[in-house]
Amino acid sequence: MDNLVYTTSVEKWDTFEAALSGFQDGNPFEDYTIYGVFISCNENKTVEGFYDGNGRYIVRFMPSFEEEYQFIIKGTFSSEEYKGNFTVTSPSGNNHGPVRVGSNLHLVYEDGTPFHCLGTTCYVWTHQSSGLQEQTLKTLSENAFNKLRFCIFPKHYLYNFHEPVSYPYEGTPCDSSDLNEDNFVLFGDNAVPEGNHWDFRRFNPVHFQNFESRIKDLRDLGIEADIILMHPYDRWGFSRMGTENEAFYLRYIMARFSAYRNVWWSLANEYDLFFHKSVADWEANAREIYAHDPYLHLRSIHNCFQFYDFSRPWITHCSIQRTDLYKSAELTDEWRTRYNKPVVLDEIAYEGNINHAWGNISGQEMTRRFWEAFVRGGYPCHGETYQHPDNILWWSHGGSLHGESPARIRFLSEIMHQTPGNGLSPVKREWDEVVGIADGGAYAIHYYSCFRPGFRIFSFPDEHNYEVEVIDTWNMTIKKMGTFHGKFKITLPGREFMAIRLIKK
Amino acid sequence: MDNLVYTTSVEKWDTFEAALSGFQDGNPFEDYTIYGVFISCNENKTVEGFYDGNGRYIVRFMPSFEEEYQFIIKGTFSSEEYKGNFTVTSPSGNNHGPVRVGSNLHLVYEDGTPFHCLGTTCYVWTHQSSGLQEQTLKTLSENAFNKLRFCIFPKHYLYNFHEPVSYPYEGTPCDSSDLNEDNFVLFGDNAVPEGNHWDFRRFNPVHFQNFESRIKDLRDLGIEADIILMHPYDRWGFSRMGTENEAFYLRYIMARFSAYRNVWWSLANEYDLFFHKSVADWEANAREIYAHDPYLHLRSIHNCFQFYDFSRPWITHCSIQRTDLYKSAELTDEWRTRYNKPVVLDEIAYEGNINHAWGNISGQEMTRRFWEAFVRGGYPCHGETYQHPDNILWWSHGGSLHGESPARIRFLSEIMHQTPGNGLSPVKREWDEVVGIADGGAYAIHYYSCFRPGFRIFSFPDEHNYEVEVIDTWNMTIKKMGTFHGKFKITLPGREFMAIRLIKK
Repeated sequence: MDNLVYTTSVEKWDTFEAALSGFQDGNPFEDYTIYGVFISCNENKTVEGFYDGNGRYIVRFMPSFEEEYQFIIKGTFSSEEYKGNFTVTSPSGNNHGPVRVGSNLHLVYEDGTPFHCLGTTCYVWTHQSSGLQEQTLKTLSENAFNKLRFCIFPKHYLYNFHEPVSYPYEGTPCDSSDLNEDNFVLFGDNAVPEGNHWDFRRFNPVHFQNFESRIKDLRDLGIEADIILMHPYDRWGFSRMGTENEAFYLRYIMARFSAYRNVWWSLANEYDLFFHKSVADWEANAREIYAHDPYLHLRSIHNCFQFYDFSRPWITHCSIQRTDLYKSAELTDEWRTRYNKPVVLDEIAYEGNINHAWGNISGQEMTRRFWEAFVRGGYPCHGETYQHPDNILWWSHGGSLHGESPARIRFLSEIMHQTPGNGLSPVKREWDEVVGIADGGAYAIHYYSCFRPGFRIFSFPDEHNYEVEVIDTWNMTIKKMGTFHGKFKITLPGREFMAIRLIKK
Repeated sequence: MDNLVYTTSVEKWDTFEAALSGFQDGNPFEDYTIYGVFISCNENKTVEGFYDGNGRYIVRFMPSFEEEYQFIIKGTFSSEEYKGNFTVTSPSGNNHGPVRVGSNLHLVYEDGTPFHCLGTTCYVWTHQSSGLQEQTLKTLSENAFNKLRFCIFPKHYLYNFHEPVSYPYEGTPCDSSDLNEDNFVLFGDNAVPEGNHWDFRRFNPVHFQNFESRIKDLRDLGIEADIILMHPYDRWGFSRMGTENEAFYLRYIMARFSAYRNVWWSLANEYDLFFHKSVADWEANAREIYAHDPYLHLRSIHNCFQFYDFSRPWITHCSIQRTDLYKSAELTDEWRTRYNKPVVLDEIAYEGNINHAWGNISGQEMTRRFWEAFVRGGYPCHGETYQHPDNILWWSHGGSLHGESPARIRFLSEIMHQTPGNGLSPVKREWDEVVGIADGGAYAIHYYSCFRPGFRIFSFPDEHNYEVEVIDTWNMTIKKMGTFHGKFKITLPGREFMAIRLIKK
């Protein structure tokens, strides 16, 4: 038992970890197994462990009950079996458990706390220098984002030609010294360049150690890690490893990361740019995840041109990239109705000024799309693509934010947290106007978007009083208008981006 | 022959008019007929005349050839026949003939001059005081609009409760003294109020005399009169006269107005709010117009919620009200393709600040929609609904303009007039971006709408030079960037509402 190291006390939904020495001969990633059986009054789970290099094997486990746990760790990695026990204590701080699908197509933490999801995107921030990674965490700590989308594999794309700080596999990459935006090719439809030499059966533990330390950093900031398991912006061949290597990879990821309460699984970014893969391939990957994630974290798959069929049973929520240049968040309620799942708008274009239409909307337009999603009971996601002298764009690299929307998203976050229940539900009004309601309609937000009513008339058949506030979503002010009942008129400034909040007294 | 008064010389596409005395007994509108036969080397047309009150009968004719014409006027209105002749001279000034459908789904005048249609809307301007009518004409003379939508019948609607200056029929209206926005009812779905007493077989000539003098005023300003023959905003019963009275009315209108070159026929505004009428009813009305307009002016019908079937053979162009709150002019190219007819966007919401979402977009958004339509080869239409202390809103009453879009529409008009050929044709580029081209692609406008590219890269396989200009559609500037060839980068200011114009040298 002298080579078993483990935590003896752990919070509910935190990560119990046991590290053990084992065999190093052959290929330990493939040749040996390790798993743990965790038993308490309420749980009985068998979880897989993984090889972390240098003869070290790790088993992780996320307990869901405040009670005593016993465990046994077995496998071919060692000739011994290991037993132990630990105590699970109450969650503290911002630990509310993993995010789940709650009632009325809203997201909630497992402890019942509403999860007002406000995402952002830094696709390959963990592949940048450690200084830049720290800066990204600092920026996140100063903003309201509570979900981050990012990739395990490095990214080959416009503004993304440099090599990552580490690779997920043992081996060497192709020569990239001549790559630039003039000769950029997306290899989704082509063979990747010559010169890559990877062993897809030997992971590079350093790569994953850094990645999981960032998952924990995010967890400590109260931010969900929406992990993109595969993506097509590739020159290394990680997007075309073949079915067996993908399954091998996914099992490693599940064994390694699933005991962190803040992970979500995004099977792929822009799955439909993997021109060599079929729906059957994605379904096979989904089965791997479903089978090997003992905690059933949120799962989805993100499109480029065409949505994946979000009605598939394994998909917990829609992870949408808007497929229309002009209309995005305004469709949230239609998608809620069509798929009957929470709608997370993971890409509705980015605030910025690069050449691409997906990367140059204004802060006002970004904020408007956030509010359109919010009043419809959906969850918008931010990204930023301002041109930068060193090509450091938040959308890919993290770093600092330069745009005008993040402050407004902080303001929106405050409004969201004032919502009764788990969030707003959309109700249609005349002329396609959508109103977000909560508390059975006793709480309502009328959002006027790019429209500029100089006044609105309300008419209630009952005798209740309504507290009325005018919210300027851009200037971030809330003006109390007083208490009204019956038929009444609220004057507005005739500017864009206004909202009226009505609370029944 | 002493009671025949007529013009002996008339420009091609101007209006020949002959006025005669005739019987006044009975109901001259109904009891007597009058028609003229016009014969020249190239034409032989029989046209109906109409009764203008006080024993005066009128026949009007629009000649289409520069040559000698002979005519004979007959009918039961008189026991005599009248003959005469006149000379048709060359068109002068802004007389380019009626507007027709030209090649490539563009509008052109009959003489081949492109008609770059930029409409606006003053639904019931001819029903207001003469002072206000004059002010409307002055405003139009100072702006670039070259088509005006307006109604023959008075309007009962929000902001429109007062009585018109005249009625189209002999009779008396219901009492309207108690009407206001609190008790407003649209009578499309209901019987109109008690108390209207109209003789639907006796027109009020004063009403039509004023109306046609306004058609002529518009003609002299180079503005097409897009006449709305019926509309549902009614408390007088003019929207529910019954099939026979409608046919009687339409024949009177055709006889009276069709000889003005600048008229277009809009069968109805928001036809689908006539809940008591069927498609068969509208088709019957279309047949009346088709049969009794000798010049086959442009014809369409305008929707509220759902388009009429614009593929009907009698419809010359789509007269569209956007059916989506957010997306309107961006669909122009889809509609062009679907209907294979010119697309006139007669309602894409109005610049203003009233309570309704159709009447409170910004000048920027209006201008944006105009450019979206323009680059797609369609024709946008303006309207304005700013709150006004005396409830004078351009959209209904005319008067003055207060918004920010008209100046930008003047600027757009200049750009339109620089287009080679009859207008732009849309070509799809990646990511739904649409480019408007002319001259076989040698002239191209890339419009960036609400997107804010900081630069764009162009790549031409040929060795031609391209003259490049950056157009700021909001600030109304054109910046010459120089001449380029092959692959080149154009820097943009990263603001919204920019365009790039490329002209092959």
